[in-house]
Amino acid sequence: MIDTIKWTGHSVRIIDQTQLPNKLIYLDCRKVETLWGAIKTLKVRGAPALGIAAAYGVVLGIRDYQGTDTAAFVRRVCELCDYIGGSRPTAVNLFNALAQMRGLVLYNPDKTVAILKAVLEAEANAIYEEDRAVCRAMGQYGAGLIHSRDTVMTICNAGALATADYGTALGVMYAAKAAGKKFKVYSLETRPLLQGARLTAWELQKNKIDVTLICDNMAATVMRDKGVDIIFTGADRIASNGDTANKIGTYMLAVLAKYHKVPFYVVAPKTTFDLKIKSGKDIPIEERSAEEVTSFGFRRTAPEGIKVFNPSFDVTPHELISGIITEYGIIQKPFAASIKRVLAQQV
Amino acid sequence: MIDTIKWTGHSVRIIDQTQLPNKLIYLDCRKVETLWGAIKTLKVRGAPALGIAAAYGVVLGIRDYQGTDTAAFVRRVCELCDYIGGSRPTAVNLFNALAQMRGLVLYNPDKTVAILKAVLEAEANAIYEEDRAVCRAMGQYGAGLIHSRDTVMTICNAGALATADYGTALGVMYAAKAAGKKFKVYSLETRPLLQGARLTAWELQKNKIDVTLICDNMAATVMRDKGVDIIFTGADRIASNGDTANKIGTYMLAVLAKYHKVPFYVVAPKTTFDLKIKSGKDIPIEERSAEEVTSFGFRRTAPEGIKVFNPSFDVTPHELISGIITEYGIIQKPFAASIKRVLAQQV
Repeated sequence: MIDTIKWTGHSVRIIDQTQLPNKLIYLDCRKVETLWGAIKTLKVRGAPALGIAAAYGVVLGIRDYQGTDTAAFVRRVCELCDYIGGSRPTAVNLFNALAQMRGLVLYNPDKTVAILKAVLEAEANAIYEEDRAVCRAMGQYGAGLIHSRDTVMTICNAGALATADYGTALGVMYAAKAAGKKFKVYSLETRPLLQGARLTAWELQKNKIDVTLICDNMAATVMRDKGVDIIFTGADRIASNGDTANKIGTYMLAVLAKYHKVPFYVVAPKTTFDLKIKSGKDIPIEERSAEEVTSFGFRRTAPEGIKVFNPSFDVTPHELISGIITEYGIIQKPFAASIKRVLAQQV
Repeated sequence: MIDTIKWTGHSVRIIDQTQLPNKLIYLDCRKVETLWGAIKTLKVRGAPALGIAAAYGVVLGIRDYQGTDTAAFVRRVCELCDYIGGSRPTAVNLFNALAQMRGLVLYNPDKTVAILKAVLEAEANAIYEEDRAVCRAMGQYGAGLIHSRDTVMTICNAGALATADYGTALGVMYAAKAAGKKFKVYSLETRPLLQGARLTAWELQKNKIDVTLICDNMAATVMRDKGVDIIFTGADRIASNGDTANKIGTYMLAVLAKYHKVPFYVVAPKTTFDLKIKSGKDIPIEERSAEEVTSFGFRRTAPEGIKVFNPSFDVTPHELISGIITEYGIIQKPFAASIKRVLAQQV
């Protein structure tokens, strides 16, 4: 698999995903500000990858810290976490990773700055390594749902480019392929930023999975006329009742899936769950700039001054979800109880 | 209203819609081949406008006809009709207009070439004038469905740019506005060619209707979170049971409307009905080139060699349609019987 994000020992090396599929460019972020900008502008994206990026952002931010006063260092780490948390609001993995980093220093006020720095770097590495293991586990659990000759559908990019390994929704497909299954995939292009066209189509093609690109508004027709057996999507935040925030268009896809009786699965690790919130109503939805919709490259595609509504995510209510594939197995309905049971059992 | 298409006496003057919204450029087609190319490349588009363009295409093709033998002239007109009919397959208005033109010469074998030429030009002008009257009538019937403070949704462009006057779906909005109603409109951008962003947003903004542009995959979220009161779309061909072919994404919108309990109306003149066919299964669906989906301007947005499915239209089954607004009134369910009754009454 490609290295979407990696700690080099002195920088966070990421693929600049805004350049794909035309150019595969690696970007070394040596300062936390550079990484912050890369998160903001979607050079690195995908909920699990954002968790990893946030953790390494803290490491970058403390690398040149010269003081020896632990209390001051703890304040600095907390400031850094607040700063990184201000980059993007929806993916909870980012906040979960920052909470882990912040917790480490807050609960170890007796340690020296040098030790805390080492511990923080080790923690970021652990978050990275854990994501790799988690991807493989989700892949294994989900792969059983794909059968040979199936037609699969997905939106946005929940693949290697969204994680440290082979992804969430696409990880399931990679695991099914590794198990010798032959199937085809329809990738929704995912307006406005075309992650499905630029990233998912690129990834699946590179990994020799039979993929066909469609516009988002063709999904209903493909479900009816071509037959779709199963849909997999990633998630940016899952509430304790199973309501799932994911890329805009996911809710549309879930409604269409229900109408066409296509099973609709969310694939997400524990770090994507936000058990503090009861339902999707409490998930903040990032709205991005009008230009993402009104221009393409430097070419204007809508009249000047036009009003635009550009939510980057939507919330799919749990009623429309068939199951949630996690590293601990597939969570079934009723979600509120199952999520509590499955995740509470885990450390 | 803007002049989308107009006969100047020696050319068919059209707006080059591929240049909108950046440039308002009029194009004079002096030869039928030029007009054929303009239809093929969507410089002129929209089912009613295509009917008018097809009729004037015949006029262009016979302008320089020098012979005096009526039989030869009739053959020439039939050849021209076949040629023009090969430009785009889905909108039936184009074929209906050509059938009218062809019928004129076939049923008048006793007329001189000079007379037939004059009659054909008069017929094309009549098709043009009729479309204007028809737009107004549909607008009046449909306007009653819009109330002040309503939120309306539409896809693609079924407006002035699709007709000789103020459109079908958008005509209803123009009529409602003229009646003093205040409402807002969500325009789906309509991938891949962005007719909603480039044309509908431009038209409605120009006519001072409150319009907000969204990506197609946001329609479900807008219906649920913003509240949509009614949806209007145009049509490219309506079968005798009410099944309606229209721009890709219309079927998606109809399914989402059903789920969110939003009334879904099709606005189309008699010329859009194809009573020879029983259901939507018999409507040929144009598939266009992969490049429409994989590139933007000259910029590649999907990997080289990727497979693409790019149907330009989809069929919305009549069950999902609340009513069909025609120049004779609103056709209600059951459609097969109502369509027969309403259209049979008319000449």
